[in-house]
Amino acid sequence: MYQGASRFSVASSARELITKTEHFTFAISPEEMVLESGHRLGPITLAYETYGTLNEGRSNAILVAHALTGDQHAAGKYDKSDKAAGWWDDMIGPGKTIDTNRFFVICSNVLGGCRGTTGPSSINPATEMPYGMNFPVFTIRDMVRAQKALVQHLGVERLLCVIGGSMGGMQVLEWAVTYPDQIDGILPIATAGRMTAMGIAFNEVMRQSIMLDPTWNQGNYYPEVGPAQGLSIARMLGMITYRSDELFNLRFGRRMVHTHPDEYFRFDSRFEIESYLHYQGDKLVKRFDANSYLYLCKAMDLHDIGRRRGGLAKALGRIKAKTLFVGIDSDWLYPPSYMIEMAHLMEKKRKDVEYKELKSPHGHDAFLIEFDQMSPIIRDFIFELAESRGL
Amino acid sequence: MYQGASRFSVASSARELITKTEHFTFAISPEEMVLESGHRLGPITLAYETYGTLNEGRSNAILVAHALTGDQHAAGKYDKSDKAAGWWDDMIGPGKTIDTNRFFVICSNVLGGCRGTTGPSSINPATEMPYGMNFPVFTIRDMVRAQKALVQHLGVERLLCVIGGSMGGMQVLEWAVTYPDQIDGILPIATAGRMTAMGIAFNEVMRQSIMLDPTWNQGNYYPEVGPAQGLSIARMLGMITYRSDELFNLRFGRRMVHTHPDEYFRFDSRFEIESYLHYQGDKLVKRFDANSYLYLCKAMDLHDIGRRRGGLAKALGRIKAKTLFVGIDSDWLYPPSYMIEMAHLMEKKRKDVEYKELKSPHGHDAFLIEFDQMSPIIRDFIFELAESRGL
Repeated sequence: MYQGASRFSVASSARELITKTEHFTFAISPEEMVLESGHRLGPITLAYETYGTLNEGRSNAILVAHALTGDQHAAGKYDKSDKAAGWWDDMIGPGKTIDTNRFFVICSNVLGGCRGTTGPSSINPATEMPYGMNFPVFTIRDMVRAQKALVQHLGVERLLCVIGGSMGGMQVLEWAVTYPDQIDGILPIATAGRMTAMGIAFNEVMRQSIMLDPTWNQGNYYPEVGPAQGLSIARMLGMITYRSDELFNLRFGRRMVHTHPDEYFRFDSRFEIESYLHYQGDKLVKRFDANSYLYLCKAMDLHDIGRRRGGLAKALGRIKAKTLFVGIDSDWLYPPSYMIEMAHLMEKKRKDVEYKELKSPHGHDAFLIEFDQMSPIIRDFIFELAESRGL
Repeated sequence: MYQGASRFSVASSARELITKTEHFTFAISPEEMVLESGHRLGPITLAYETYGTLNEGRSNAILVAHALTGDQHAAGKYDKSDKAAGWWDDMIGPGKTIDTNRFFVICSNVLGGCRGTTGPSSINPATEMPYGMNFPVFTIRDMVRAQKALVQHLGVERLLCVIGGSMGGMQVLEWAVTYPDQIDGILPIATAGRMTAMGIAFNEVMRQSIMLDPTWNQGNYYPEVGPAQGLSIARMLGMITYRSDELFNLRFGRRMVHTHPDEYFRFDSRFEIESYLHYQGDKLVKRFDANSYLYLCKAMDLHDIGRRRGGLAKALGRIKAKTLFVGIDSDWLYPPSYMIEMAHLMEKKRKDVEYKELKSPHGHDAFLIEFDQMSPIIRDFIFELAESRGL
């Protein structure tokens, strides 16, 4: 995942967070989890990390939900020598916006993921082979129910805040609708209450690219890496949708990698934007499972907080948490209008809701980049929640 | 290509245009055409159609340039029994906006195309095998120079107007910059003076999809149809970029093809938007050559009217033709801003230039749909040109 240059690097290096991934297993036979589809799944292992300490009143827990290609490693390093820190390390840590000296932060790899949580690459106990495409279809709602089991296991009955962007924001909304009495506040960023038709369209093209790769082999490629080219193409497309025309023009324009006329007019000559996308595609392949990618995109497509709840407005009506939507002006994948619509629907129902917007050329991915804008917004919101809980 | 319901169907059925494709061959050895890349290509055959009659003064010729997957069949039917007419039949014909009772209309399949014009699927005289990926890289500028040979062959020294949308609009701009003294007016629609980084990015993903298909086989698949799945995926992606979020929401929303819960939660369940994209992908495969698609996308990427001409502004400074840019408010692939910028640059140089905008939810493809809005704009523009030529 692309990370902008840290603006907090001086502060954070002084009090570095060292973390490790832990595992929690539940839904053990015959107590399998019944998914929204009706299928039973178990055992389920969730890979997760926590930062900070749960207070005596168990009232300072904040759950962070990751996006499509994110994972449980939201903050800190596993070892001081690690080059990269967690994906939201700019936001989470001692003295940072989400201050781990004050709060107990939880982040888990989603159900269906590939970083230690049960997913398509896990062993199916029924066959003792990897699930592959026999993994059951799951939904954002199922992800959240699995997270709930983890949160309870950690001794937390009530969350101070659930926060996340993109697919993380989808989980945030499902949390607030599914467990309205067990959350003080939610902060959904750059997301939607139900996946848009255009979002589904892009996801289907990404899925088709993966499945076109002959090494995908109907999902049976383990222990090999599988459809590297197909997944890389999917990621290239994803990256386009996470950025903006403005950013690409500023950053790459029409510059070519090779500029000699003999190369310029070759079929395989590359513009810098192409080279950048290939780099991003190749990078994802090294850390992500293609079948997980397929299933997570499907879960996003099926995302609709209003399903079997009487529609979007009724679902939003269930929310009791103080709510702050954060949109991004240049995000055309999850345009601000969808969050503004939800905020209006909640306002009508006299909910405690607000909408704020980041100004950024970065597009959808601004929630992984614009820390200077997000920091005061998130800090103030969490501060108010903490105040109301007497923290 | 998707065509909206004709709003002129009553008028046109009364005076139906019957047409046929003709062929013109030039650049015959040793007089091959020297492409912008320096490579020689010949012989070159252009497939073309004409509608109406060239007047005695040879002053009533209008050239129509087609978009990526368009062809020379812009208007009319080959036979009365044909179900579909040409791709701009709503605009071109007796008594229509581009009135073939008054004007002589020319449309040719672009260089590198696959509808009768020399392209990657043609026989390479050096090997007596199809060119495949040995076809030389060509540019929009090369397409226009080939069209110029055709126009001269038809006895036309000066064009009254050159008109086209998308890749057609790129040709329109190249025409005006390359042959400033031989055109009265130009009407570039939903296009750019140089391909944007985002446009290049989408094209590269489309190319990669085609080349990932094992049946592509480095371009050596003739006489078989070749990478049908890869080309279909490319088209699916293309279709997303030609439309808009608003349109997809209006037309498909989150409706599913199958709604029974047992199907809803299957991995292969389909939303209507997915089904629509697959339909469009499968349809293109039946009429388009994958290698042509690759080369035409490359030509678009290389499109820059300012190349070797001192940049965009200087290139626009060459134009002498009366110019009307037409943008589409919901077009995010070729946003209005790029055409407005060109209009401003030309205004500064005291050119006869105007910009008009279609209001449409249809996105980029509105130039193939919004005939009621385009018709008066185009009719008035051509009328003025004709007046000034004493027609």
